Amino acid sequence: MPRERVSHRDGHVYEFGPEMDPVYEADDGESVTIETIDSLNGAIQRDDDRLDAIPEEVNAATGPIAVAGASPGDVLAVDVEAVRVAEDRGRVLTAPGFGLRQDDPEIDHPATRITEVESGDGADGRDGSDGARDGSDGARDGSDGARDGSDGAAEVIEFEGIDVPIEPVIGTIGVATGGETVSTLTPDDHGGNLDTTDVTGGTTVYFPVFQEGAMLALGDAKAAMADGEMCGTGAEIAVEVDATLSVIADPAVPLDRPVVDTGDAVKTLASAETLEEAVELANGDMLDLLAHHHGFSRTDAYLFSSLVGGLEVSQVVDPQVTARNAVPSEYLSLPF
Amino acid sequence: MPRERVSHRDGHVYEFGPEMDPVYEADDGESVTIETIDSLNGAIQRDDDRLDAIPEEVNAATGPIAVAGASPGDVLAVDVEAVRVAEDRGRVLTAPGFGLRQDDPEIDHPATRITEVESGDGADGRDGSDGARDGSDGARDGSDGARDGSDGAAEVIEFEGIDVPIEPVIGTIGVATGGETVSTLTPDDHGGNLDTTDVTGGTTVYFPVFQEGAMLALGDAKAAMADGEMCGTGAEIAVEVDATLSVIADPAVPLDRPVVDTGDAVKTLASAETLEEAVELANGDMLDLLAHHHGFSRTDAYLFSSLVGGLEVSQVVDPQVTARNAVPSEYLSLPF
Repeated sequence: MPRERVSHRDGHVYEFGPEMDPVYEADDGESVTIETIDSLNGAIQRDDDRLDAIPEEVNAATGPIAVAGASPGDVLAVDVEAVRVAEDRGRVLTAPGFGLRQDDPEIDHPATRITEVESGDGADGRDGSDGARDGSDGARDGSDGARDGSDGAAEVIEFEGIDVPIEPVIGTIGVATGGETVSTLTPDDHGGNLDTTDVTGGTTVYFPVFQEGAMLALGDAKAAMADGEMCGTGAEIAVEVDATLSVIADPAVPLDRPVVDTGDAVKTLASAETLEEAVELANGDMLDLLAHHHGFSRTDAYLFSSLVGGLEVSQVVDPQVTARNAVPSEYLSLPF
Repeated sequence: MPRERVSHRDGHVYEFGPEMDPVYEADDGESVTIETIDSLNGAIQRDDDRLDAIPEEVNAATGPIAVAGASPGDVLAVDVEAVRVAEDRGRVLTAPGFGLRQDDPEIDHPATRITEVESGDGADGRDGSDGARDGSDGARDGSDGARDGSDGAAEVIEFEGIDVPIEPVIGTIGVATGGETVSTLTPDDHGGNLDTTDVTGGTTVYFPVFQEGAMLALGDAKAAMADGEMCGTGAEIAVEVDATLSVIADPAVPLDRPVVDTGDAVKTLASAETLEEAVELANGDMLDLLAHHHGFSRTDAYLFSSLVGGLEVSQVVDPQVTARNAVPSEYLSLPF
């Protein structure tokens, strides 16, 4: 059976709330392909397209997708198999009143740099992938132009003559909330604008389920992004995401916030007003996982958490910031 | 010529200040071996040795070592060739009023776990290194017992039955300050209690020179530590450090704060009262380096910094916290 494709043209949201109407209903365990538009809805195509203010509607998240059987207290597992860029350029930019250095007088706000998708220099044996780039507006016009996963890794974006490997990131990904209504610009316990480099192909993202059907939506991808997302964006780009959606009923460790498993490490994610609050929440969630896995007291989990892996920064520029606590996989596997 | 050995028994400090008396004067380019005691001066040897409060004298830093020719405005390069653990145990612990979760009622304060140094399980081809561990009080009794660098990587510490590879970290390392007097518990622009996992064998650490001779001192090593050092310590342990000390006169980019070059990445380090302030300082320093290396405007440096590497956490538990901005070496080499 071919995968169902769910596109931003079928439906997208700019808010996560407690009541969301699904654009597609997936079976538990179903694999889908999700198409997204870039976070600025295609408005920025040239260096002289500048952003004078953050638009009211930003980070369009394709969906929501209801997952059959997901009920409050369950966990939704989103196994991200692949993320493919689906247009021929990304855009990295500043906007007034936005970003870590919005008050730096030597930095232009607004400023835009288009980052063209290129095939790389082949120096490390990469084969050209020009053929796969025909019709690169695929995500908006159809799916034919999307890059094939098999050579997507050969591609780079170009920033002022420097090749940067494409390592796609899904910036906004989340589920219906427990009660509040949250813009897709803001991350919180339901996910949302997490802007976390680990959310990419090969990672499984786990969310607490707050509402029937979970109601997954995602968008706001980047072709590349630094941890921190300092200027306020990565190289914003349309993508296609292959993912399998599964419900974990009655999890052995209940989740309060998202967790990712990259294959190399398990990472708890927390968003809050300050990094200090975010790292304390992420560490607290990690102690729950370590205590369950090893049979540790909370004291031993805390001491052990101070020896391996550690705290990481996802982003410092959204209305709430996001941090994570990583523990290498040799010391921790998730109980589901 | 054999290396000079400088031990904490020769001299150590609990403060970095503007006027420091050297215990050794090194030539520019001289290689030395520096012996340190653990951060708690050997007071914690068993699980039932607990720390009811942070001692007034903590993080003894061996030195200071004057480096001939270092003058204010220069850069001191500390090429850390190797860090070897020099005793048979580390200790990881909590203390009242200290650490990220000092108010968590389910965590004991104080609590201590001794982490014995073991030879590992050999499962990955590691050979036993018991022979090298004879006389493991080496750092306090002499140097005979120090582990040889060639098999140091085979060793682990054991935490409650779990083997954790020894990846030593020099917690406190710094130079004389521009004016203020700063406890070895506190990191700042002169370095000090940076608690940064990258400060280990194979890394070069660069410091701004504020006073004649620079006046390097270091100590407070750990056998292993998580980024963040959440409980307030890693596995605190005595070590020996092989390092080469060089003066860079009139650097092409003046330094305001420490920078490390791990071989894989260049990272700017900044300490401040909050993580928000620390990451802004670290990013600002990185923009200076990127602008110089690539001939970028500050705007382009900022946009590029949002695409590669990114913000990292060193520690969140000292009187000032420390963060860093990493850029992979393929995009940046230091101009000295």
